[in-house]
Formats: sequence, C-alpha cells, structure tokens
Amino acid sequence: MPSSIGMNERALAFGRDVYYGHGKIEILPKVAVRSLDEMAAAYTPGVAYAVQEILARPEAHWEQTTKGNLIALISDGSAVLGLGNAGPMAAGPVMEGKAVMFKVLAGVDCIPLCLQVQNTERLIETIAALEPNFGAINLEDIAAPACFDVVSRLRERLSIPVLHDDQYGTATAVVAALINALEVTGRNPEKQRVVINGAGAAGTATADLLLTLGLGDVIMVDRRGILNRNATYDVAHFNSLAQRTNRDNISGDLKAALRGADVFIGLSVGRLVSGDMVRTMAPSPIVFALANPEPEIMPPEAEAAGAAVIATGRFDFPNQCNNVLAFPALIRGALDVRATEINNEMCLAAARAIAADVPRAELRHARILPTPFSETLYPSVAEAVARTAVTMGIATRDPGVGAVADNCRHLRGLVAMRQKILFGSTG
Amino acid sequence: MPSSIGMNERALAFGRDVYYGHGKIEILPKVAVRSLDEMAAAYTPGVAYAVQEILARPEAHWEQTTKGNLIALISDGSAVLGLGNAGPMAAGPVMEGKAVMFKVLAGVDCIPLCLQVQNTERLIETIAALEPNFGAINLEDIAAPACFDVVSRLRERLSIPVLHDDQYGTATAVVAALINALEVTGRNPEKQRVVINGAGAAGTATADLLLTLGLGDVIMVDRRGILNRNATYDVAHFNSLAQRTNRDNISGDLKAALRGADVFIGLSVGRLVSGDMVRTMAPSPIVFALANPEPEIMPPEAEAAGAAVIATGRFDFPNQCNNVLAFPALIRGALDVRATEINNEMCLAAARAIAADVPRAELRHARILPTPFSETLYPSVAEAVARTAVTMGIATRDPGVGAVADNCRHLRGLVAMRQKILFGSTG
Repeated sequence: MPSSIGMNERALAFGRDVYYGHGKIEILPKVAVRSLDEMAAAYTPGVAYAVQEILARPEAHWEQTTKGNLIALISDGSAVLGLGNAGPMAAGPVMEGKAVMFKVLAGVDCIPLCLQVQNTERLIETIAALEPNFGAINLEDIAAPACFDVVSRLRERLSIPVLHDDQYGTATAVVAALINALEVTGRNPEKQRVVINGAGAAGTATADLLLTLGLGDVIMVDRRGILNRNATYDVAHFNSLAQRTNRDNISGDLKAALRGADVFIGLSVGRLVSGDMVRTMAPSPIVFALANPEPEIMPPEAEAAGAAVIATGRFDFPNQCNNVLAFPALIRGALDVRATEINNEMCLAAARAIAADVPRAELRHARILPTPFSETLYPSVAEAVARTAVTMGIATRDPGVGAVADNCRHLRGLVAMRQKILFGSTG
Repeated sequence: MPSSIGMNERALAFGRDVYYGHGKIEILPKVAVRSLDEMAAAYTPGVAYAVQEILARPEAHWEQTTKGNLIALISDGSAVLGLGNAGPMAAGPVMEGKAVMFKVLAGVDCIPLCLQVQNTERLIETIAALEPNFGAINLEDIAAPACFDVVSRLRERLSIPVLHDDQYGTATAVVAALINALEVTGRNPEKQRVVINGAGAAGTATADLLLTLGLGDVIMVDRRGILNRNATYDVAHFNSLAQRTNRDNISGDLKAALRGADVFIGLSVGRLVSGDMVRTMAPSPIVFALANPEPEIMPPEAEAAGAAVIATGRFDFPNQCNNVLAFPALIRGALDVRATEINNEMCLAAARAIAADVPRAELRHARILPTPFSETLYPSVAEAVARTAVTMGIATRDPGVGAVADNCRHLRGLVAMRQKILFGSTG
C-alpha cells in the first residue's frame, strides 16, 4: 500500500509540526494495542501475570519492564552549561536534547528528570528513591563540589551504575583526544606533564582518568593556583587532588604551571591563556581549550604561539571535544551487561575505543577525534565498555563478544529508520 | 519508494521482537537528527538558546520542553492491583501498561516512576521534587489511608494537577456507570440510597463525587460496619466520611445497609454479597460488584436475585467498569488548558461525558458504558474536563471550544498511524 504509507509519512511529519506541541521527546508504546484483546494483554488483566511473575522471581523485573534499556537523566539545574545555578526549569531543554542523543546514537531510552531540591541530602535521597525502574542513572549539570559527594554516595547505595556525565563523560572524551594528540605529536605518554586548569567536576575526573592511565605528571590549577601539598584547602577534594597530583609539589599560578608543560587542558573559563604563555610550554605543545562558549585561548592565537594540536568544545573549530562522544556508549555498554557501576577502567576503555575510531590513515593534527556521525563509534565503544565490565567481574550478564556492538548497531538502525519515516532521508 | 518502506515496516516489527529488549514503552526523539547541523540544533550549542530564553521568560519552559504533554505516573507499589504492598519493582508492568494506555488513548506522554520510599513524608518530598518537567502527576497504587494525605498535601504544594487514579479515576468511571444505570432503570438520582462497600481509596473518592453530584443518600460500609456518627474511628478519614454520609445515621453491617437500598457499589473484596442480600434491596436494584479479580457477587447470582443492572471490573462480563475510561481524558483535558488541579467538578464533568458517549439508542441494561475503543470517548471527555476547568477559573490558558477534543483526536491518530506502521492494521 505505497500510497497510504506515503500519506502516513506526510501526516506524521505534518502532525509533528502542528500538533505535537513542544519539546523534543515522546514516549511511545512498543506493543500493539489495536483491539480489546491486545489491550487486555498490554494492560488489564494482562499485567497481573507479569506482576505475579516478578513477585515469584525478582529477576523477571528485567524481562517484564523496560528497565534494561531505560535510564534517568537527572539534574538539579545547579550548573547548567556555563550559566551556573539556572535551576531545574531552565535545565529542561539541555536534558531533552541529551535524551535525544542517547536514543539516536546508542538506542538508549532516556527520561530527563529535573529536580526541585534544596540540598545535597535531599538530592541523594530523591535519586535513590528513583532506582527501581531504571537500568542506570546519568547525573547532569550538578555543581562541584556537591557532585563528588552525590556521586560517591549514590554509587555505594545503588545497585545500578551512576554516571555523572560532567565528570566522567567529559573526562572520557578529553582522554580520547589526548591519546590521539600524543600519537600525532609522537610523544611518549609516560613522560608527559599535563596541566589541567579548573578543578571542578570535569577537571577532577580528567585528573583521575589520567592518573589511572599512567601519565607522567598531572598538575591541577584552580583560582587559588597550583594545587600542592604545602597548602590546606577548605574544599575537601582539593586536598585529595593535591595528594594524588603534582609529583614535584610545585606551587604558583597558571603561568608557572604551564612553563615547560607538554599539555594544557582547560576546563575552566574563557581567555585565561595568552599566546605568550603557550610559548613557554614544551615545543609543539598540545592545547585543549575546552571552556564554553569562549575557550581559554582562541585556536588561531594558540596556533600562532606554536601549539601543535588544538581542541575546543566548539563545533565551529576542528577537534570538537564534547562528551557526546562518550556518554551514549558508556551507558549502552553498562546496560547490556547489567554492570553494577561505571568505573575508571570502563571510562578508559571507552576513551581508547573513541581514539581508535579515527582511522590511523586519517589521523592528523586537525582530526584527533571521530564525529558523532561515525557509524562505527558507538558500537565499538559500547563493546569496549561492556568487555571491560565483564573482565573486571562487575557485569551480571555476558551476552558474548560482539553482542553489545551488534545491539547498539541494531537499535541505532531502528531509530534511523523511524527518523527517515518521520522526516525523510536528508538533513 | 514503496519497497524500501515495506522493508522498513518489516525491519521495525522484526527489530521490536528481536532487539528491543523487554517492556512496553520507549522514548523517541520528535526532532530530526540526521546531520551535524541538526545535531547542533537539537543538542549543543542549540539548547543554550532555549535555556537563556527560559531564564529571561519562565513561561518559555512550556514552549521549549515536553512539559505540556508529559506526565509522571508515580507509585510506591504499596497497593498493586489486589496484591497489596508488592513493592516498586513488581508495580513496573502495571505502570508501563498504563503508560501505553495514556499514549494510545489520549496522546499523553507518560513515564512510570516506581519509587523506593519508606514512608509518607519521604514519598511526598520525592514527588514534590519531581514537579519541574511534568505537566501533571498521576499517582497510582498507593495504599489508603496514606494516599489521602499524600494527595491533599501535594495538591496544596504543587502548581500542576495531582490525580490519584485509584481514587478519582475509578470514582469517575463508577459515577459514569451509575448515571447511565439510573437512566436505564428510570430512577430519580435525588432519591437514591447508595451503599458503598469499602471505604478505601476508590470508595472514599466515589462517595465524594456522589455527594458533589447530589445523590439522595450515600452509606459507607467497611469491615467495621456502616460508618456512622455514634462511633469514633481510629482512621481519620472514616470520621470525616461519617460526618458527610449516612443521612439518617443508621448503623449495622453490610446486610443492614443493603436493606431497601437502590444501589450497591462494591469496591472491596470478592464474595461478600449473597443473592439473599440483593433480594432485600429495593426492586430492580443496581449492583456494581467491582472487586478484582473476584467480584463481591458473581453477575449470574445477582441477576437471579433480581438485579436490573450489573457491572464488574472484569472484561469477560458486560459493563466492565475500569478507570481506563477516565484517566487518559482527565489528564488530557487538564494538560491542554494547563489546569492547576483536577477537582471533583472536572471528574463529574468527565463522568457525565463518559455516560453520554453511549448513544442513547444503544443504552440498555447490559450496555451502560462505552468501550475504550470508542472513537469519540476520549476527545469528548477531555473537552468536557477542559471546559469545566476554564469555567471554574482554574485553567491558565484557553485554546477555545473544541480545541482540546481536536488535539486529542489528532494525537490519537498519530499514535494509531505509528501502530499501523509498526504492527499492521489488524489486531
């Protein structure tokens, strides 16, 4: 019935524009409900059998509900983009955009939950209460330092993975970029001195991953200067960072930190780094100026100062380093093996797989990262995440080598086909 | 391209069965993401503009997110079907089935949230925290008497409607059935004596609606017998009910209550009413035996004892009285005028519209209710609910007479088309 289906296509597209109302997501049945019999199966009395099955065998909860593919994307709106404590209402569009990315890129069903909460205790209690029907929780835009406490306490308390994307999603993308930047510039990872400016959510997690990876030295810089062991900080995680980083226990400001450094990673605010500061770094340095919307140094200025590889958070320069490269597959991989957590090793496996997704023949200074439209990226990263979880013994099921990549490809394909039906095939 | 679309259809249906994993719902984008440009619009940096618009003009939250069509379906699993405190995991399938009904029948996007909470205070706090990105909250399967407190306190606290479906959804369907049963048996509503057995969530709300409707007399019966003003009850809402009902302040057991009564409404447990008890009622009485799965009296027995109209909660007898007739349109109507609550008058308007959806020519003893597959039911009920909210001044927008029914029809049509594409046209 080609003509009636053509009509459907047009009507659906029309309907979307005219009648769908606002926002970017919708919740659809994936079961047929076209008759009273089907309704009896999908709703009442059909559901009573499923309930009784779960009561008899709790494991059936994963079979009789969407839990295994459904995540909550949770924010209190305390650190929305670069806008600070914008609140849960203003966080809404970011959260819905991200839910769209989860589905399109990795087939993950994701519901944004913007919470009106006043303090950390209540935030933790509320998120913990939400555990039962989700397979994982992705925290979003929660301000540092509260986020460290929220994440670590939820990880202890819940039996599903808790990922704070602004920490580990960002860190994973940064490490992926760094792996390729080091390769492009012919550097030995073990001998690098990396300066991270901004000891907030992303900076702290990036330091953690780089330390797990075994980089030569990591130096953290915040408004108070280089974090070191001579000082005592009023923020608990600064003291902890000072213990783990800064091998030679140097002190001083960002300028001092950069002198002779191989890599600058800016996860702070715009216009903090000058060309002259870049000139004091090691020859052909790596400069990741990831502040949004204005980088710590603009790419042309960094290039003129001798930077060999430059990345930003912006889509209008080469080497856009965005956590969208990481979070869909981190979650996909964790869900498909029912991992109980997403740990540093899984993030590093993801970073390596993201880096490897750029074909070696195409790797160059202005192309250290894949794009989100790589067909191979998310399946291969999800597979790497899942295999790491299995190897480390934190997976509760193992669908076999290649199965997670296959599932990711198929779910992506189904979404792409629906997009084609709704919107046509060209962008 | 008929052949490629045929392939899509098959692949989608195939994909659903093989790769979709479990459960009944999925979350899909309603925006196009087929290129980097579209991704930049749907995600970053596009969302930053929406965030800034909301910060500048809070009202834009309704335009830039799904809030206006998205509801949370929330349960603590404390009263799942007839199974008691089954917990939030076991509640999952019921909740997903209901989310499917919301979308198919009224185009409402509904996410189940099964909460792991230990007490009423925490339940209220958790639900209140969830307000920002939802247009309404539907509470489900929360045990009485806690539910009364939860609902009344949330209604005070939130600026979006809070509906406890086990109270007011059920009560609305019961009142709809009663309106037509009274008409079929030629009774004067103002002169009826109605006995409600079961003073839990549904029974209490049904009494409330019948009192608002202006029935002659309502008598509530619970395990302790007829609620009356000579007794003092340890359950707060029993004392309140005893004040509002039982005009002549009679006492005794269910048997005593039924003597001479016109209507029996059972919202309790199976096998409490005998044929002999029905024989003591007024001539040609109305018997709604709504306990599930086993009614208070089986229909053949009630009929043999002279009952003129019999309804049950079961789909295998005539006159199935289920809240699915009510909740999708109660929410649709409230959302489309952005009502700040769903009150008794809106429920009564819904009940009258449900009753009116049975064509008068078809109205008879074994057909007092429409089926959920009536094409006209949900649009007309949603419209009635919305107009009542507008008239009462609790709507914050008025799209005009007929617009809510139109929207309901269009959204239903879009879901039906997707069902057709995915599953074919026959059930």
